[in-house]
Amino acid sequence: MRLRPAFTAPLLALAVAACAHAPAAAPAKALTTQEVIDASTPADWRPLDPANTLYLQLPSGMVVIELAPQFAPAHVANIQALARGHYFDGLSINRSQDNFVVQWGDPAGDEAVLRRPLGDARAALPAEFSRPAEGLAFNALPDPDGWAPQVGFADGFAAARDPKAGKAWLTHCYGTVGAGRAAAPDSSNGSELYVVIGQSPRQLDLNITTVGRVVVGMERLSVLPRGSGPLGFYADAAQRVPILAARLATDVPEDARARIEVMRTDTATWDAYVESRRNRRDEWYVHPAGHVDVCNLSVPVRPIAAPKG
Amino acid sequence: MRLRPAFTAPLLALAVAACAHAPAAAPAKALTTQEVIDASTPADWRPLDPANTLYLQLPSGMVVIELAPQFAPAHVANIQALARGHYFDGLSINRSQDNFVVQWGDPAGDEAVLRRPLGDARAALPAEFSRPAEGLAFNALPDPDGWAPQVGFADGFAAARDPKAGKAWLTHCYGTVGAGRAAAPDSSNGSELYVVIGQSPRQLDLNITTVGRVVVGMERLSVLPRGSGPLGFYADAAQRVPILAARLATDVPEDARARIEVMRTDTATWDAYVESRRNRRDEWYVHPAGHVDVCNLSVPVRPIAAPKG
Repeated sequence: MRLRPAFTAPLLALAVAACAHAPAAAPAKALTTQEVIDASTPADWRPLDPANTLYLQLPSGMVVIELAPQFAPAHVANIQALARGHYFDGLSINRSQDNFVVQWGDPAGDEAVLRRPLGDARAALPAEFSRPAEGLAFNALPDPDGWAPQVGFADGFAAARDPKAGKAWLTHCYGTVGAGRAAAPDSSNGSELYVVIGQSPRQLDLNITTVGRVVVGMERLSVLPRGSGPLGFYADAAQRVPILAARLATDVPEDARARIEVMRTDTATWDAYVESRRNRRDEWYVHPAGHVDVCNLSVPVRPIAAPKG
Repeated sequence: MRLRPAFTAPLLALAVAACAHAPAAAPAKALTTQEVIDASTPADWRPLDPANTLYLQLPSGMVVIELAPQFAPAHVANIQALARGHYFDGLSINRSQDNFVVQWGDPAGDEAVLRRPLGDARAALPAEFSRPAEGLAFNALPDPDGWAPQVGFADGFAAARDPKAGKAWLTHCYGTVGAGRAAAPDSSNGSELYVVIGQSPRQLDLNITTVGRVVVGMERLSVLPRGSGPLGFYADAAQRVPILAARLATDVPEDARARIEVMRTDTATWDAYVESRRNRRDEWYVHPAGHVDVCNLSVPVRPIAAPKG
């Protein structure tokens, strides 16, 4: 008997079969997730912007990160400068705390004399815990979650918005990437990054700068052995996982880039996808929840064909 | 620079220092989590009931599961019968799906002719997706979450309650253990178990029978390599992780049992703990959330001294 909480994660495997390119009728209500994806059109998908796509090369393979300059412009610019300067190459993943975060950067930690120079990147940046709500296209979810006045998606990122305060921010969900900081709110500079590997730690929202999300390769980070030191840091330096290289997609030959596209989050197809997750219509389910959390919605990803020529 | 979203997980390491046994003053408001634990008294903690404690022995070590007969009496009785019959010994973990579940049982799957006999356990059970709300001591959280009319804790388990429908159930949180089923709602019997390893899949609530929670050893399950087959099943049988043994604590000599206790969830100390998570008072935080999700609250666990004699 195979367990069938038949959650077919909206990942590559699922989306591979989803290239039917049906005519662009607005998806009807009460579709399954698979039916929504099957009925999607090319316009429902978008490529990643190579300038804002970071490839993290680990011994186990590649992790693809989409950076969010619309939320943390100074931090993303710094991460881009660090990647261009090959700052992360040869550094390591130094922390893996169960149900919380995996973190990478300079293992020298606070010992400034040993730390790798930042090159063209800035040592100090302003905190970017939120951005103005104005000017951000925000597709709100129908369900409140108690953590923020509104939650939804903006440019493909899980996000929250406070219309009264006029602020918006990336929510801490599985796969969200942030910039570690010390006690001072403005002590992050993007050289130390973490990714959420467990239950959404939304208490971090508005307390730290979030810079993007993992699009492909979460399973290369989430399975790393947990560290036995305080906060999940590896007590033994031999447990650290080396970062072979971190590159912007723009700095990689076109034919070596990840050939993927992601579902847009500002379309009728996306809204139908959300509804298919709020109320599962797959035959396995007997009780549709009538609710979905912003962190339960993975943005579907699928491969695209190699460029011709 | 060490990242300090200084989440000190309420796990063993933290609680080790928490044996101060201060006089039983009701904890004041605005304490940090550490302060709440430091101020707790012995009466704020409870041992696990050995009859409802399942030890899963993996090559990497032990996983301790607390069973919940008050929520799924027939399934728990069956799991107890399976454990007493050594049913799980030599079976395996067969599935690891990123951000969803790890699952164990008979890898023969649907091939009934190959399946291991269930011994004294029953082959068929009623579905136990919920239980009557009446008769269950339920400590509700102050914050609604949108998934259920009420969420909170009952007998140490994360749970939800619907007063109108008169039902209560275990919520699917990180570490929640459930009984896999096929398409028919009553097709689970406890021989196939799964544990949540990612963002709380609350859409499963009221769709499947939940039987307990992992108290210690989640990191032995959450780091297992993800399976490359459909739904994260291991495509290659060699990837399966053997279960060396599964035993009830009652069937293990007393001096070989896990010496742990867990925080009660029906005390003023628990309520203070919840408040310390809703509004973090640790110096690192600049923005208290004013909210906590039932799945963000790990019940603190700590070692207890070995029995004398």
